[in-house]
Amino acid sequence: MLSMDEFSLIDTYFKSIVLEREDVIFGIGDDAACLHVPEGMELLISTDTLVDGVHFLNQWDAYDIACRAVNVNLSDMAAMAATPCWISLALTLPHADQPWLQRFSQGLVDSLKPYQIALIGGDTTRGPLSITITIHGLAPKGRAIRRSGALVNDKIVLSGNLGGAALAVDLLKQVIDEKERDSLMKKLLHPIPRLDLLSFLCEYATSAIDVSDGLSADLNHILTQSKVGACLFLESIPIHPLVVNYEKKNAIDFALSGGDDYEICFTVNPKDEVKLFKALEKAKIDCNVIGVIEAEPGLRGKRKTGEIIPLQCKGYQHFT
Amino acid sequence: MLSMDEFSLIDTYFKSIVLEREDVIFGIGDDAACLHVPEGMELLISTDTLVDGVHFLNQWDAYDIACRAVNVNLSDMAAMAATPCWISLALTLPHADQPWLQRFSQGLVDSLKPYQIALIGGDTTRGPLSITITIHGLAPKGRAIRRSGALVNDKIVLSGNLGGAALAVDLLKQVIDEKERDSLMKKLLHPIPRLDLLSFLCEYATSAIDVSDGLSADLNHILTQSKVGACLFLESIPIHPLVVNYEKKNAIDFALSGGDDYEICFTVNPKDEVKLFKALEKAKIDCNVIGVIEAEPGLRGKRKTGEIIPLQCKGYQHFT
Repeated sequence: MLSMDEFSLIDTYFKSIVLEREDVIFGIGDDAACLHVPEGMELLISTDTLVDGVHFLNQWDAYDIACRAVNVNLSDMAAMAATPCWISLALTLPHADQPWLQRFSQGLVDSLKPYQIALIGGDTTRGPLSITITIHGLAPKGRAIRRSGALVNDKIVLSGNLGGAALAVDLLKQVIDEKERDSLMKKLLHPIPRLDLLSFLCEYATSAIDVSDGLSADLNHILTQSKVGACLFLESIPIHPLVVNYEKKNAIDFALSGGDDYEICFTVNPKDEVKLFKALEKAKIDCNVIGVIEAEPGLRGKRKTGEIIPLQCKGYQHFT
Repeated sequence: MLSMDEFSLIDTYFKSIVLEREDVIFGIGDDAACLHVPEGMELLISTDTLVDGVHFLNQWDAYDIACRAVNVNLSDMAAMAATPCWISLALTLPHADQPWLQRFSQGLVDSLKPYQIALIGGDTTRGPLSITITIHGLAPKGRAIRRSGALVNDKIVLSGNLGGAALAVDLLKQVIDEKERDSLMKKLLHPIPRLDLLSFLCEYATSAIDVSDGLSADLNHILTQSKVGACLFLESIPIHPLVVNYEKKNAIDFALSGGDDYEICFTVNPKDEVKLFKALEKAKIDCNVIGVIEAEPGLRGKRKTGEIIPLQCKGYQHFT
């Protein structure tokens, strides 16, 4: 490991991954980056921190850590129906470990490039390993989707399926089939931000959130801010097939409380339901109606039998 | 200490300090904040991380830590001649210590309010104490001041004086006069961002940087990016009076290499020098010409005797 100062470290690893964009007047190299926001667009800003031992393990490949840090931020943009444009990166490292930095910066490149997102700046500091990314996106004026827009009778829609990432964490120390482990670890390490939903959310969603802490906890944010309640159709919630295999009895708990899947939960006016699903089918995007917004506050589950169960809005929580 | 989850923690301490601004369409409470950038303005973005034990000591009052975190970011906006508007805060904490959070949030309020800056969002996570602030500012199109604009014969101007913050660090463990200690600690804990220079920089500066790592190291960024060299008039560099008292022999080293003063070093076309200083005098702002930009690369010091000394561009560096 070479000893290198902060500036040559930034130069070596991060300047090379700067993507050219016309709206970046200038990026890394000044006290601030300078950006152009087109008229008629609004700026969306979100920040996510990943801490060693809390959000990832330091034995993970730095490539995976970088991808995860970018993707959880991209997921926030997807949930707002905003197009991600620029990120700034605050990287705190115990020491300038060059192979680690090389893997990390490769992870950044590979997760930013497909979406043409530019790294515009940040800060590198010495300290316990952690990564804070602030992402900046754009949405047409008044068109960003909020948590507060759900109305009574709106259908609750979920992209993909749930529980895979939580199962991956649960099975980390168990010996399981290698193919199955790979497929689960991919869910945990490389959550795919649902930016493919952007145009659908923009056109149809009345509210949206990404499922990072667990469906019940995240949906609860929509309910609280929209001042409504909801009933989930328990058998309609798509669960990752391996969760059903490994945790038949608790599968629904994994789906309701397991975090880290980064699917999008959104609401849609019932009159738009058919149009939305026709469009989704055409785009080959898998979404399902999993419940309905109701006037009665709180969250409930309904079984096919008609039985109604009150649901706790629990998910992953820091500081408890 | 109560146990509280992440969300009520954010609610309690940070929602209350949200400042109303017309350009904040919505702030804390969604997956992203939504902001309006007026036509004709460019967006300036800068990020600074403060890590426990590196940039501050955890025995410091949380109020001081918050002020410092805000002020070092404000200083970046000052150096760009940008008006600071919004910050997002990524706060990583070992546990939800309520008195600490109360002091911290009070520090945020007191350092943001004078400049009408809004806290628009962020992330709170569990982990080793660190604070990352991403600050967003605005400047008229094409008017942000860069490091790359210095030209040969430009005068090098410095606001205030240097060395006080570095002396404070040096004297931390020594017994000194209480008044003197207070005055030095104020320099270290509450660096005043030089936003009072904004209009002068905007009108006259050809390049600018804030002195965070040390004058020689920071000025060197201007020299490198402007592809020029410089000669500093050693006796003209204003040094904090207590540095002269305590470190008579090394006073110039404190001024050249001591970081954390957050003064602004900028360059100005010699034809504008008289106009600039007339305007500064009228505004009662203390600035001094401390050198000149030259074609010959590198940084030199010139004594009154005419003797010329090569200067090292050293300052505080992580990872060395």
